[in-house]
Amino acid sequence: MKIARFTSGGSDPQFGIVDDEDLVVVAGDPMFQGFETTGERVPLAEAKLLAPVIPRSKIVGIGLNYAGAEGLLPAGSRTEPVIFLKPNTAVIGPNDAIQLPPVPGRVIHEGELAIVIGAVAKRVRAEDADDVIFGYTIANDVTAIDQMLEDGQWARAKGYDTFCPIGPFIETEIDPRGVPIRTLVDGEERSSGHTRDLVLSIPEIVEMVSDVWTLLPGDLILTGSSPGHLEIRAGQRVEIEIGNIGRLVNTARARA
Amino acid sequence: MKIARFTSGGSDPQFGIVDDEDLVVVAGDPMFQGFETTGERVPLAEAKLLAPVIPRSKIVGIGLNYAGAEGLLPAGSRTEPVIFLKPNTAVIGPNDAIQLPPVPGRVIHEGELAIVIGAVAKRVRAEDADDVIFGYTIANDVTAIDQMLEDGQWARAKGYDTFCPIGPFIETEIDPRGVPIRTLVDGEERSSGHTRDLVLSIPEIVEMVSDVWTLLPGDLILTGSSPGHLEIRAGQRVEIEIGNIGRLVNTARARA
Repeated sequence: MKIARFTSGGSDPQFGIVDDEDLVVVAGDPMFQGFETTGERVPLAEAKLLAPVIPRSKIVGIGLNYAGAEGLLPAGSRTEPVIFLKPNTAVIGPNDAIQLPPVPGRVIHEGELAIVIGAVAKRVRAEDADDVIFGYTIANDVTAIDQMLEDGQWARAKGYDTFCPIGPFIETEIDPRGVPIRTLVDGEERSSGHTRDLVLSIPEIVEMVSDVWTLLPGDLILTGSSPGHLEIRAGQRVEIEIGNIGRLVNTARARA
Repeated sequence: MKIARFTSGGSDPQFGIVDDEDLVVVAGDPMFQGFETTGERVPLAEAKLLAPVIPRSKIVGIGLNYAGAEGLLPAGSRTEPVIFLKPNTAVIGPNDAIQLPPVPGRVIHEGELAIVIGAVAKRVRAEDADDVIFGYTIANDVTAIDQMLEDGQWARAKGYDTFCPIGPFIETEIDPRGVPIRTLVDGEERSSGHTRDLVLSIPEIVEMVSDVWTLLPGDLILTGSSPGHLEIRAGQRVEIEIGNIGRLVNTARARA
């Protein structure tokens, strides 16, 4: 099932289930109130899709979770997966603009599979991970890479407003062990990965992260990006395609 | 004015203004609904004080914001102030237990003045910082320091559940340029600093941080700790005293 959060014709944000070319409107937030529908249908073409979830507490990133992903870091850097945080103020939805701040050096795209947490999750064992996962979406872990290398800490360079596009849908039924991830810029393939190459698997990520901090419903975990991150410049269109979840499209522009 | 968030006799959390030995109950959340009082008074001695605010979006930390604060880091580390994030799931209130996770090495206290943001704040100039500051409270930026040095990234080692005690009050009227900060462990002074020694002043912090990400009402900024962070062990009582804000007391125990 694919869940969208959207507005149409100036409505407040609402939730819908994708059914062919339509959204079947859901009565409340399906994460908290179930999937009861109102009977109303909105053509997808008439909906403005929003970020499918606004994290209440945390966006957790997993760095260095694909072999070779440390290629951008200085020689001698740690190479085991590491966790970091992005703020929820970085979240934007499908087709929203990535605003490039006036930082020195490159801003890069990192297309990633994102886990959407659906329950309070504390010290969950890997074999129970599915019990706390609501679904999966696509994320772009936008990063001011040269500033990140200069800062040492990643929070600033990965935390700017608009640096966490997510969407277009939350898919509740995929098997995340076997999905390809492609990133295109202006229609040209830039990076191609596959979740089979994750260093820490999705259940292992949930076990590790929920041992450090309690996860809350709506929290996101960005599972890491495979090598092939490249600069995005103002005017360029970034598309991230993950298996059956869909395609997340955002265009970069200079910050106003 | 000192604002407390509290329960008494099993009530839902409510807000009150400290008046001598009492709390004068406020009708709503003063950050959003003003200071109208209900007329009710609750003796402070009968209130269980809670964390005075639950950040809706971010807890921002400023590292290396006192001269000499880099003493715990490897030689050659960056020494300019750096920003990092702690998750809101780390927040606990006065007298709540700091739970020490089973990590290798030391867990340390870092007593800090915390700015409580009271308005949506985006690219605020230093001279306008007061317009977005609701008040100040005390924070303990608890850190698994040896794990932090091993990880490189600070998010995990500073982000465990219970690693951000705050309180006991939000003080809305202090001049934060001139307040002493003392940390005591089991009644003995461990660290003594003064906000006059901040590298980035409070207005400069607000300018820098609000340029990176939009701050939301309820966000906290921990302004950094002066040198003198030392290990806390299970059973030890940590007290942080900042000028006229009050004294934040928490006891450490091994994680259950």
